[in-house]
Amino acid sequence: MTKRPETPLLDGISKIEDLRAIPRNQLTQLADEVRTEMIDVVSETGGHLGAGLGVVELSVALHHVFNTPDDKIIWDVGHQAYPHKILTGRREQMRTLRKEDGLSGFTKRKESEFDPFGAGHSSTSISAGLGMAVAADLKGEKRNIIAVIGDGAMSAGMAYEAMNNAGAMDARLIVILNDNDMSIAPPTGAMSAYLARLVSGKTYRSIRETAKQLSEHLPRFFSEKARRTEEYARGFWTGGTMFEELGFYYVGPVDGHNLDHLLPILDNIRDTDTGPILIHAVTQKGKGYGPAESAADKYHGVSKFNVITGAQSKAPANAPSYTGVFAESLIQEARKDDKIVAVTAAMPSGTGLDKFAKEFADRTFDVGIAEQHAVTFCAGLAAEGMSPFCAIYSTFLQRGYDQIVHDVAIQNLPVRFAIDRAGFVGADGPTHSGAFDTAYLGAIPNMVLMAPGDEAELRHMVTTAALFDEHPIALRYPRGEGVGVELPEQGQMLEIGKGRIIREGKSVALLSFGGRLAETMAAAEILTGLGFNPTIVDARFAKPLDTQLVETLAKNHEVLLTIEEGSVGGFGSFVLSHLAQNGLLDNGLKVRPLFIPDHHFDHAGQDQMYKHAGLDRHAIAATVMRALGNEKAANQVMTGGL
Amino acid sequence: MTKRPETPLLDGISKIEDLRAIPRNQLTQLADEVRTEMIDVVSETGGHLGAGLGVVELSVALHHVFNTPDDKIIWDVGHQAYPHKILTGRREQMRTLRKEDGLSGFTKRKESEFDPFGAGHSSTSISAGLGMAVAADLKGEKRNIIAVIGDGAMSAGMAYEAMNNAGAMDARLIVILNDNDMSIAPPTGAMSAYLARLVSGKTYRSIRETAKQLSEHLPRFFSEKARRTEEYARGFWTGGTMFEELGFYYVGPVDGHNLDHLLPILDNIRDTDTGPILIHAVTQKGKGYGPAESAADKYHGVSKFNVITGAQSKAPANAPSYTGVFAESLIQEARKDDKIVAVTAAMPSGTGLDKFAKEFADRTFDVGIAEQHAVTFCAGLAAEGMSPFCAIYSTFLQRGYDQIVHDVAIQNLPVRFAIDRAGFVGADGPTHSGAFDTAYLGAIPNMVLMAPGDEAELRHMVTTAALFDEHPIALRYPRGEGVGVELPEQGQMLEIGKGRIIREGKSVALLSFGGRLAETMAAAEILTGLGFNPTIVDARFAKPLDTQLVETLAKNHEVLLTIEEGSVGGFGSFVLSHLAQNGLLDNGLKVRPLFIPDHHFDHAGQDQMYKHAGLDRHAIAATVMRALGNEKAANQVMTGGL
Repeated sequence: MTKRPETPLLDGISKIEDLRAIPRNQLTQLADEVRTEMIDVVSETGGHLGAGLGVVELSVALHHVFNTPDDKIIWDVGHQAYPHKILTGRREQMRTLRKEDGLSGFTKRKESEFDPFGAGHSSTSISAGLGMAVAADLKGEKRNIIAVIGDGAMSAGMAYEAMNNAGAMDARLIVILNDNDMSIAPPTGAMSAYLARLVSGKTYRSIRETAKQLSEHLPRFFSEKARRTEEYARGFWTGGTMFEELGFYYVGPVDGHNLDHLLPILDNIRDTDTGPILIHAVTQKGKGYGPAESAADKYHGVSKFNVITGAQSKAPANAPSYTGVFAESLIQEARKDDKIVAVTAAMPSGTGLDKFAKEFADRTFDVGIAEQHAVTFCAGLAAEGMSPFCAIYSTFLQRGYDQIVHDVAIQNLPVRFAIDRAGFVGADGPTHSGAFDTAYLGAIPNMVLMAPGDEAELRHMVTTAALFDEHPIALRYPRGEGVGVELPEQGQMLEIGKGRIIREGKSVALLSFGGRLAETMAAAEILTGLGFNPTIVDARFAKPLDTQLVETLAKNHEVLLTIEEGSVGGFGSFVLSHLAQNGLLDNGLKVRPLFIPDHHFDHAGQDQMYKHAGLDRHAIAATVMRALGNEKAANQVMTGGL
Repeated sequence: MTKRPETPLLDGISKIEDLRAIPRNQLTQLADEVRTEMIDVVSETGGHLGAGLGVVELSVALHHVFNTPDDKIIWDVGHQAYPHKILTGRREQMRTLRKEDGLSGFTKRKESEFDPFGAGHSSTSISAGLGMAVAADLKGEKRNIIAVIGDGAMSAGMAYEAMNNAGAMDARLIVILNDNDMSIAPPTGAMSAYLARLVSGKTYRSIRETAKQLSEHLPRFFSEKARRTEEYARGFWTGGTMFEELGFYYVGPVDGHNLDHLLPILDNIRDTDTGPILIHAVTQKGKGYGPAESAADKYHGVSKFNVITGAQSKAPANAPSYTGVFAESLIQEARKDDKIVAVTAAMPSGTGLDKFAKEFADRTFDVGIAEQHAVTFCAGLAAEGMSPFCAIYSTFLQRGYDQIVHDVAIQNLPVRFAIDRAGFVGADGPTHSGAFDTAYLGAIPNMVLMAPGDEAELRHMVTTAALFDEHPIALRYPRGEGVGVELPEQGQMLEIGKGRIIREGKSVALLSFGGRLAETMAAAEILTGLGFNPTIVDARFAKPLDTQLVETLAKNHEVLLTIEEGSVGGFGSFVLSHLAQNGLLDNGLKVRPLFIPDHHFDHAGQDQMYKHAGLDRHAIAATVMRALGNEKAANQVMTGGL
């Protein structure tokens, strides 16, 4: 570890007023100190690096000009809020970032009064900010609400919905468009191209000059007189910017790293009584840290790294990641079937589709942060005979839920959903938890729902999805590494709706759906040590349910457990409902569904989270013992005595 | 009934080629005939009137110019497709519209090869069309894909997501913006104001003139030379239209009722090799039928009506509607608590909030077709201490699912969800079915979930939601009339998570959640006739579950039924999971969950749909008899013998 950098100005800030007492000519130094501190912290903890480095000056300027926390800053996504956290009383806790019981990697209401709205998913800040601005108006309170949103987040429909609504209201809302020409992946879509034209074209210079002039000469450039002059001037421009068409007062582009530009503009906007304003700030992701500036995608999210060299230290993998196996398997299938296309919503590397794109550039579509569109775009592709794989994380697929119901399932179009990050995700915490997809997809008629018990199964399921076209089909798999089983060269088509018996035992049946299979098998080992011979089944499918297998398990065992990494309403509910409707619970079967309990789990290690949720080997084995009335053995299992 | 109008041209169309053989100078007559026919049909069947009347000329022109069904027309929402259906082989079936086994009120793939994509929800057409256009490109097929989308639908984020994506691609996609300045309700949002400026301002005339000139003088106005000239000309306009900024070629505004304008423009666009095009057509909702022209909202969806007078004949109501009771109750609460605000997504009259707005205009927010924004806007309001009621139909709330999880529930903000149209909706069919909300909301930690058994209970639940602020809370209630119970003057706060015992009996327990309570009570009558004395319970809450009550029911009865108007994964699953996890199924309780079976139910009468789903009184009683092993009595109940 390197020696901690010297940060005299930052050291002097113990409350927000201390920051506001720093003279303006020293704020650039403060920004430099925050930047150094942040690099030092993240080199130790890992986390999101580039986004925070891009908004250091903006963070300093906003807190200096505005009366936070009474004025409210909403950081869209929240992963760029590290400088904000350092400045708002959480500096000492920064080294606990993303660790259990430590600071969240996003904004979080419970964490600080300076976080008025939590985030994690993108593009929510304008909606939330408008709600807060309207609330202030209704309560007769005067405060500024500032939403800071990246250009990548502007591709999401909900940002547009919010702009469209705000633009027609007279609410006091300040939107800062943090234009770094980069979300996680290089930006896509027409909006991105449009912003580039605004910054580079003639429009850029003229508007910048205007804004500069106004901010230099008019202490309050929205004063009534100036306003009329300004409106008159704007009338000369046919159309104006898209933001003006949507009813916002547009200011910019401004250099988001230049405090001499930023501060006067923010001064002018503070306390004015105008409607919604959009400030277009141009920043650089990773600003001030060489390695991050030159490879913004690689330094979006980082593990621990060496500050001098930039080298990230990742623990060597024991097994290929599910993401990697998915990508490789899909590439194999696509070589055989030119109808296969792949769609992602701004997550090419997270879903592994970056690899797919290298071989099949024409058949890969990154639609931007736009899950609603992604799903229905796939429905259109499927309607015309293509085989679209829609690769979206479980938590983000929630954004396309209606489209799955309405455009895919009701029409029974064979869209293939590749759902990465199913179950707990670890350090990203509750906002990224993939806990609900089995329940929300399982409720929909026509859906086929698979989850692999290991990475070899994932390969088979990709093949199955590629070959199956009678219904929409989804495969959900966990974040992280597989369990280390041998990977077959080629995937095989699985029989739809059929599970596999891993071990035929008696008395106790353990029925696993998805990534808890390895823990289930470990639980079986514990039970074997206790003299049992449990049956182990990998369900493979939650829908259609292998009713024959489930009925056989119910009839031939005393205890039946279902195990899954999802919420209530999922696999266990389908099993219970089927058994109950067919009278198979009438004879005293001891059935125990294990699923993620009904609360939001805070970030921690993935394994730790499953332990808390009662979904590890010990909890599985203890549930069996408790069902059998052996509370003592159950307790011994839980305390490690067995 | 009036005599059917004479329609000589329409009578001559038995296949699409017949339409295309009609000389252009007779197409206006054809349009008139289609319009007359449509008015005549809908006066008999009821259905959507105004939207279809607005696109009669467009329908005729599109089918005349384009090579349908090989070229594909996607009607956004689909409720304006009646003229399209009349022209595409379904004229004779039109009188079965929205009836069981009859034509759908929307487009439907199963119904006709001329319906390439089904709809019901708004704003999906550009995404689907882009998918189809990309599929055609990949397959090397050359065809036109035309998406016809209303201005109201343009407020939805997914339309923007699709435009943003399409604008950055070179796909052959034609979007026709059908601008009638009216969705179901008067339009809201900045986009609407922008379109009005495009049509009324200077921009209007100049672009219209341009388009007209181009279409008159250039047979293919996207020929390379013309294109360059055109681009040069466009360069003179700073900015251009918002659609141009988003990468579309913009043509318009054009008069959507003038075939002399429409046909040459469509001619020119057909078979050109350009990227995405947007044609801005201005139409009038209800065009050509006086009563519908002058009261577009009243004639959006109609019951049977008298063609001469326009008078609609609605069956007199036996009881107040759930929607009406919700609105009245909310007004009562809002008079007492000025923190209560109401938010709707373009459904002011469907949710009853139009009544609320009359008394509390400043506290009512119609955000447009923008469910994602609506939910997070409410989260922002709640974060600042307001009590927002977010009134959205069950089926449309699916669009805000991620926002409910991420912005509301994880932060535990007390947003109140008033979910109208829960369960089956009748004539609107599967796209509008409110079957999934108990499952998709019940999976989310922190949610409180209520459903009233009758309209008096709804009043209490509105009061409960108004007063409760510890968690987000949802109340779901059916479409249509209540059951006729006496309404209390004032609602009372209910105890959270507690059900009510309606009748304490023995041996058989019927546990209802929501609007099936009346049928449950009727089933109890049948069972009483068979010598039973069933316990009847109105659960009131699905979350938190009344575990004490459920446990007591399980312990003291031989048979326990759960009854709900929702899918698997909902109330029944919560009851089963709780009982199973606590060993309460180990003793041979005959538990039978009744819920909507796992398929999409086609439109029919609401009662008929519940009968098909096995959720009427007979099916409930028969399930009890079957659980008790009395198959004979079960069959007699089902066949009406008992």
